[in-house]
Amino acid sequence: MSEDKELLKKDISLRLRRIEGQVKGIQKMVDSEVCCKDVIVQIAAVRAALNKVGGLMIQNYAINCIGLDDENEEVEKLIKTMLMFLK
Amino acid sequence: MSEDKELLKKDISLRLRRIEGQVKGIQKMVDSEVCCKDVIVQIAAVRAALNKVGGLMIQNYAINCIGLDDENEEVEKLIKTMLMFLK
Amino acid sequence: MSEDKELLKKDISLRLRRIEGQVKGIQKMVDSEVCCKDVIVQIAAVRAALNKVGGLMIQNYAINCIGLDDENEEVEKLIKTMLMFLK
Amino acid sequence: MSEDKELLKKDISLRLRRIEGQVKGIQKMVDSEVCCKDVIVQIAAVRAALNKVGGLMIQNYAINCIGLDDENEEVEKLIKTMLMFLK
Repeated sequence: MSEDKELLKKDISLRLRRIEGQVKGIQKMVDSEVCCKDVIVQIAAVRAALNKVGGLMIQNYAINCIGLDDENEEVEKLIKTMLMFLK
Repeated sequence: MSEDKELLKKDISLRLRRIEGQVKGIQKMVDSEVCCKDVIVQIAAVRAALNKVGGLMIQNYAINCIGLDDENEEVEKLIKTMLMFLK
Repeated sequence: MSEDKELLKKDISLRLRRIEGQVKGIQKMVDSEVCCKDVIVQIAAVRAALNKVGGLMIQNYAINCIGLDDENEEVEKLIKTMLMFLK
Repeated sequence: MSEDKELLKKDISLRLRRIEGQVKGIQKMVDSEVCCKDVIVQIAAVRAALNKVGGLMIQNYAINCIGLDDENEEVEKLIKTMLMFLK
């Protein structure tokens, strides 16, 4: 949580770009009739990546929008607990 | 969120007791060979109930342990957003 | 499940294209500093869309790869139950 | 999947009994004002245990109710894929 606020936003952007690439990859797999099982594994991977981004956005919300003090140990624990439960 | 803190704890306790009853009910269904589909519907219901309790515990954590101001509209929005993402 | 197999694949492709668009939209929201709550709502929507596609892929797997009889009422019930549990 | 069908049912029963115990434990934690974070960790553990039971019930459904051949390599792959996606 000692992460710089700007870094958090960049991390989110980067992850979203990667997710977009993964979704494009899945489309190609479907078009080229790749074995369904591998496609499902990829979909599960994208879902996990989205959950991670959702957690980071909530962290971002708490810190950058609501202004919770991310240097505060208690707030840090709350956010960590919340992220753990989101998984 | 204007809910009394004591009420929140009671609500959580009540929900946990209900979940315990639901789990016992599922055990009976399994023992008496009830159609698997109905059992799976019940398991999904318990999971949803647990998610709700988890959300309430996080709300409880934020308010009763960390001391976030539950009258604060922004904190309320954060928690609501988190609960929505949990579903 | 009486759906034509080709239609199922087209449905999956269409949904993936829509998901790609949604992810691009979320990136724009993040870049233009849209209120975090709305972004999180969108992420949850994409996750739900992905779960739906995953379910359809499993249905596709069962029917087109493994050759389960999609006219079989029991197989149809199994897949419906699984999709219900995924939500 | 070479597991005996009776064993699968016993495994499910045992897991449900354990879940019931875990839920009781959480109730005690809440009553004795244990730190919220630990309670939330426990709730997440029960949810994971329930998801596992749900997956086993779907497997049970496929084999014992619908009569899919669990010795069939393709059916085994389908069920494994489904369970992987359920996580």
